[in-house]
Order: sequence, then C-alpha cells, then structure tokens
Amino acid sequence: MIEPYAAVDLIRQKRDGGSLATEAIDWLISRYTSGYVGDEQMAAMAMAIFLNGMDRREILDLTTAMINSGERLDYSQLGRPTADKHSTGGVGDKITLPLMPLVASFGVAVPQLSGRGLGHTGGTLDKLESIPGWRADLGNEEMYRQLQELGGVICAAGAELAPADKKLYALRDITGTVEAIPLIASSIMSKKIAEGTGALVLDVKYGSGAFMRDLEKARELANTMVALGSDAGLNISALLTNMNVPLGLTIGNANEVRESVEVLAGGGPADVVELTCELAREMLALAGQPDVDVEAHLKGGQAMDVWRATVVAQGGDPDAKLPVAPESHEVRADRDGVLVSQDAYQFGVAAWRLGAGRARKQDPVVHSAGIDLAVKPGATIKAGDLLWTLHAEDASRFAGALESLSGAWEIADPGTVFEGAPLIAERITAK
Amino acid sequence: MIEPYAAVDLIRQKRDGGSLATEAIDWLISRYTSGYVGDEQMAAMAMAIFLNGMDRREILDLTTAMINSGERLDYSQLGRPTADKHSTGGVGDKITLPLMPLVASFGVAVPQLSGRGLGHTGGTLDKLESIPGWRADLGNEEMYRQLQELGGVICAAGAELAPADKKLYALRDITGTVEAIPLIASSIMSKKIAEGTGALVLDVKYGSGAFMRDLEKARELANTMVALGSDAGLNISALLTNMNVPLGLTIGNANEVRESVEVLAGGGPADVVELTCELAREMLALAGQPDVDVEAHLKGGQAMDVWRATVVAQGGDPDAKLPVAPESHEVRADRDGVLVSQDAYQFGVAAWRLGAGRARKQDPVVHSAGIDLAVKPGATIKAGDLLWTLHAEDASRFAGALESLSGAWEIADPGTVFEGAPLIAERITAK
Repeated sequence: MIEPYAAVDLIRQKRDGGSLATEAIDWLISRYTSGYVGDEQMAAMAMAIFLNGMDRREILDLTTAMINSGERLDYSQLGRPTADKHSTGGVGDKITLPLMPLVASFGVAVPQLSGRGLGHTGGTLDKLESIPGWRADLGNEEMYRQLQELGGVICAAGAELAPADKKLYALRDITGTVEAIPLIASSIMSKKIAEGTGALVLDVKYGSGAFMRDLEKARELANTMVALGSDAGLNISALLTNMNVPLGLTIGNANEVRESVEVLAGGGPADVVELTCELAREMLALAGQPDVDVEAHLKGGQAMDVWRATVVAQGGDPDAKLPVAPESHEVRADRDGVLVSQDAYQFGVAAWRLGAGRARKQDPVVHSAGIDLAVKPGATIKAGDLLWTLHAEDASRFAGALESLSGAWEIADPGTVFEGAPLIAERITAK
Repeated sequence: MIEPYAAVDLIRQKRDGGSLATEAIDWLISRYTSGYVGDEQMAAMAMAIFLNGMDRREILDLTTAMINSGERLDYSQLGRPTADKHSTGGVGDKITLPLMPLVASFGVAVPQLSGRGLGHTGGTLDKLESIPGWRADLGNEEMYRQLQELGGVICAAGAELAPADKKLYALRDITGTVEAIPLIASSIMSKKIAEGTGALVLDVKYGSGAFMRDLEKARELANTMVALGSDAGLNISALLTNMNVPLGLTIGNANEVRESVEVLAGGGPADVVELTCELAREMLALAGQPDVDVEAHLKGGQAMDVWRATVVAQGGDPDAKLPVAPESHEVRADRDGVLVSQDAYQFGVAAWRLGAGRARKQDPVVHSAGIDLAVKPGATIKAGDLLWTLHAEDASRFAGALESLSGAWEIADPGTVFEGAPLIAERITAK
C-alpha cells in the first residue's frame, strides 16, 4: 500500500507553523493507532503542536480522527435525551456522585464514563470503589440496559472508545506535552463525543488545585472545547469554577462518598450543593428542561432513589459501612483569627501522600485515607479549634502529609473581613 | 541507582524556554545513549530545542556530552600539527580530495573522517570508493600509522566516535528536527572535536544546493560552530561559500575523482582550485604556517605525491581506470545567448536520480553515474552547443533526471552581462 503522507513531512509542516490538512490529520492518527507512525514521531509532533498550536478546524479534525480510531456509542434508540458533565479535575471534586442521580431523576439519561485519579486530583471511579462490591467495569450492553432502566450510570470507559487518545495521552505524559490546549481539548472531547451524549456541560476549573492555574488559560480551554462540541453537534456549555480552595469538606475517597450521600439527602456543604445544582440546571436546560427546581429533588429524595438503585445495579450496597482508617491526626489552630486561605493544591498533595491517590497508574488507592476539613476560608477560629483531621492506614504517612500542608493555610487577625472569590466565575456558551 | 533527573522535567524546562544545566545535559545524553531515556522523549526534546533554541553554554555542554559518549582520539604524540576541514555539504563538492594531500604536503597532518552521502549532496567516501580497491574502513591504529607515515588520511569515522550523535542524528532524520542550528552545530563539532584535530576550517555553504539556503542562517551556523570550537580549544575559522551553482564541472562520484586528480595535477576548474587553495591556506595558517604558496604544491606535484601514496595505502590503485557509464545523454542549447543560472539543488537531484546518490542509507551508489558540465554561468553559448552530459548505467534513468533539470538553468539574450556572486562570501574567525 502506498502511503499518501510521510510523518516527517507533517511534523515539519507543524514545526514551521503551518496548518495540517484534514486528510493529513486523519492519516496521522489512524497510522499512529496502528503503529505505523512511531512514538518518537508522534512525540515530536505533539511538541510542535504544544509550541505552535492548532487552529479551530485542526482541533476539530484531530478530535474527529481520535473518535474514528474506535467505536462510537449511540443512544438514539434510548427514548430519552442524554446529558453528561466533564470536570477538568480538582481537589475534593466529588460532584459527579450527587449530580448523575439528580439529573437522572428528571428523566434525562446520564451516561457518565469516568476515570481514575493520577497525581493530586482524585478520580470518580476510585471514590465509588470505596463502596463494598461496587463495579466500575460494565460492558456496553450492561451500561445501555442500566441507562434504559435507571436513567444513569457512572462507569469506566471501555478500551474501544477513542483508543488513539489513550495511546497519545500515555505518550504526552512522558514527553512533557500534556498541558497543550489543542491536545487537552481534543482528548477530552473525543472521549465525550464518542461516548454519544447529546448534551454536555464542562466544569473547567482554574486555580492552584486545577490543571490550568490561571483563569485566562481555563477560559481559552473552555472556549476551545465548547466550540469543538458545538461543531460536533452537541448542546454544550461550560462553567469556569474556582479551584483555589478544596471543594466541600472532604478530600479522599470514602469520605467524599459520605459527603455526596449527605448532599443527596438534602444536606452537605454549601459549595458542593451549589455546584451540583448549577451543573444540574445547566445539563437539564441543554437537554430540553430549563427552569426546573433541582433542589426539590435533593430535598424530596428523588435523586437519592436513583443513587441507591444505580449503586445496587453495579453490585454495591448503598447501606454498607464505608472503610474507616485506623489512624488519624488532628490539626488545631495555634491562634485566634479568621481562616483566609486553604490551598487546594497543597491539600490535594497531602491527601495523595496519605494514600488517597496513586503515584503510578498500576498502584491501588487507600479508600479510607484522606482529609476531613472542619473549617473553610472565612471561618472565625479560636486557638485550639480543630482545623482538619488527617486519616491514614499507617501513622508513618502523617509526616509527609503535614509537610505538604506547611504554609498551605493562613489565619489572619481576628476581625479580618474575608471576601472569597465566587465559586462559579463565568458561564461560557456556544457562539 | 537513584536518577538525579527525570527526562520529562528537562523536556518541560526546554519547552518553556528555559536553559538546561550542564549536569542535566550530561545526564540526558548519557542516559539517551544507554537507552534509559527513550527515543520518544528525546524526539520531544529535539523539537523543543528546534523551536526554543539553546544558548552558547548549552550548545557547548551538548557537544561535550556527545563527545563524552564515546572515545576521543589523541594526536599529541604524532610529532606534527593537525588540521581538518568540514563542509556542510553541497553539489559537486569534491574539495576534500585535493585538499587533504595539498595540506599534508606541507607537513601538517590531516585526519579527515568523512561520511557517505544521503539525498542530493554527495559523500566523500562514496566518491573515493570509485577507485578500484580503495577502502574507507580503517581501524584507529591503521589510521594513526598512515597519518604518521604519509601525513593524511580520508576514512570513515569509527562507531566509537560520538555514538550519542549517531543515535540522535538518526532520530532527528525521522522526526523533522534536522535543521536546528544547536543540533547541527553540536553534531558536527562533537565528531570533529572527538576526532582530535588541533585546527579546523569550516566550509559553511549557503544557497539552493546547501543545507542552509540563506546566507544569514549559514552565518549564524558558522558563528555558532566557530564559537563552539574556540571554546573547546581548537584553532578554528569558517568560510561562507556560495552553493547556488554546482562546484566544478562534475557532479557524481568517479567523475569528481577525475576532476580532483586534474586539480592535483595543476589544472582543473577555476572554482575548485580557488576553494581548495583558500581552504588549504586557512588550515595551514591555523596550524602555524601562514603565507605559504599552496599553488606551488599543486603545480610542483608534491600534493599529487601524497594523494598517490594515500590511495595506495588504503588499497587503491591511483592509475586504475575509473568506472565509466555505458549510457550517456547530451543536453544542447536551443538558442544563442549567455548562461546566467545553473541551479545547484536541481542538478544535485538530477545526479542523484541518475544513480550517483542513495535514497536510503543501505542503498549502494552507482560510481559511474552523474553529470559532466560543459559550461558554467557566464559562458557565451551558440545554439547547438553542448551544455552538459548525463551518465547512467541504464538509459531509463534519463527521463527522471531531465525532469529535475527542467527550469534549472537559463540562457539570457546574447550580450547580457553576467555578474556571478563571489565563491567565498565571508570569512568568520573566533572572537
């Protein structure tokens, strides 16, 4: 077979600031997936894309090519609209857990394909696996049946969805080419589009605990992804949300499930409730139900019913006792004052060091490990008050976690007026 | 063993425009040579260097690290000064052949480690292998003995010289990262410094048939390499020479040997003689012999004596008949006028298509194939005059070669005054 392109010519073109043709991008991704184009060539291309960028048409073509590298799910026969959410990842971000049942309780199907955590941000599947018996791996058929019967599912994406993205992501991870907007956007969107959802809301985080530290970069990423989704025919919008402070009062796995269940029971921390409700309204509006009272389904138990049914369907016991760590360590205030900061990144790393996260893909996580926060920024503190409690399987973990927390918070003088940034900074819609 | 660096961190540093520490460059090159750092990581790094550059200190460190990846030759016991030349490559560039014996005839040893051709530029070893019996592969000991006894040698570089460069060059070739000045400069200079010469003259070509098409880029490369050599303790200078027109009247292999022998016999085309003599003066001056009459050793036969002795020492017969191609094709002028252009690149590609060059590293070259020029730019032409003759083993080669030559030259109206660019544009010395 005569190849219509040579990888080295396409690399040179991108290196010199050119734009790659649709057919060239198609060819590159299909030949990279098959192994004809080598990792070393794709690494050079990824760096050239990192430094020279891609235009909107190229990013759409790259996304399409990655979708075409695998299968694409189809919910057209499901009989109800579909909506999904993607978060770029943060610390204490358990929103998927209460959000899926909440949206599903309104009759909109939520096919939430999720991932595991790596580094300081947690993974939705890791959290749910705290529930004894709960299974993340469902076949496509099983997933479809659950969606049909219960209206929602949170499970692992199969290997057949966008395999090119999986290969490319692993390569980017070791070649310093992760943080490029065209590559992040096409990676996220290829999976979400292949997953087959009709509506999609993006929770694009900015701040110390997020992938994108500054708001401007997060906005650029959000705009790129919204354009991409819109070009692909999705009903799509994005919220830019603050990740300078952990979300909620728990960071870990089992403790985040516990907090999610509180929200589903009509309680829970204000910020988790706010973001869950806002994202639910956004998803429902895009799926054809604007102006619904989402809070009512938290207070009324409808969301909880879906939660319990889906946990059971995936082998879990919603009433099972969640794992509790044998060792704990309390951090208390050494002065009176007002808590004015709580660095999301440092708290994320501390939880990771306690065992809640993994250093390598193949490592397990410790479900009981993590941090419970007693206070959040703005709280008035007395000397001796409990600030937060660390949990671990082994007390030797505390030293490293406490080191990560050194300088991670600040108590200002009593009477200081604290004004936090809003949780939701901006809403971005398709142009 | 705990590694002091992670390749991905160094890639990120260069990607973000940073400067790599000496120890980091050392580590990277040594671990790349051993295989611990993978090709995909080095490819991303090469692209980051291509696009973000390297400062003078980094390029010197990269060169040093590549030298340290292998052995370094030592001529301190040779009893005479050493001088070498490196050309960045061009069309019809056979200068090494007359230059080595000419310089050696003054008692300065010339350890000329050469390469084979790839693409439209020829290789010195390919040309010399036209001589029946001539061997390019000498061991280090044999090479040293020949240098001691005859004062000069042209042979293949052993695998032990800068192995990191060999590995990196092969990688750059397939990842679109060849034409980066820090990478070109460190590649050339690591080999030349490891080779152990005391003086070095660089023939940096610019123009259509050269690696660097424009003079400015060629000047930048020359300045970088001269600085690098000077920092490494070499006596070094560079000439920027014109490669818009083929050098001499022959392009190929056997025909270029024939022309070189004419120069050694005191004849030959003016441009080949001029460049050979200028480079010889430059090398001799750097080796401690300024103001010598180099032309005298061409006219007087001293250079020819060294040539014959070195050919014999390497198994060749200086009186053997060189291969002649069975097929030839003449190109004649279709009008009266003045030849005003003769594109080096197109003539190089035509010779390559006739069989004089190779498409893949493992291919052989056809020694008898090539082009003999009857005229050079500035010549007054009558319709029907012979312009050039193509030579090949097989007449089927002519069509492709003629296609390459289409539009490669121009005959202007009779009486047109032709002013060619000077062969030697600039001389660059250490600051």
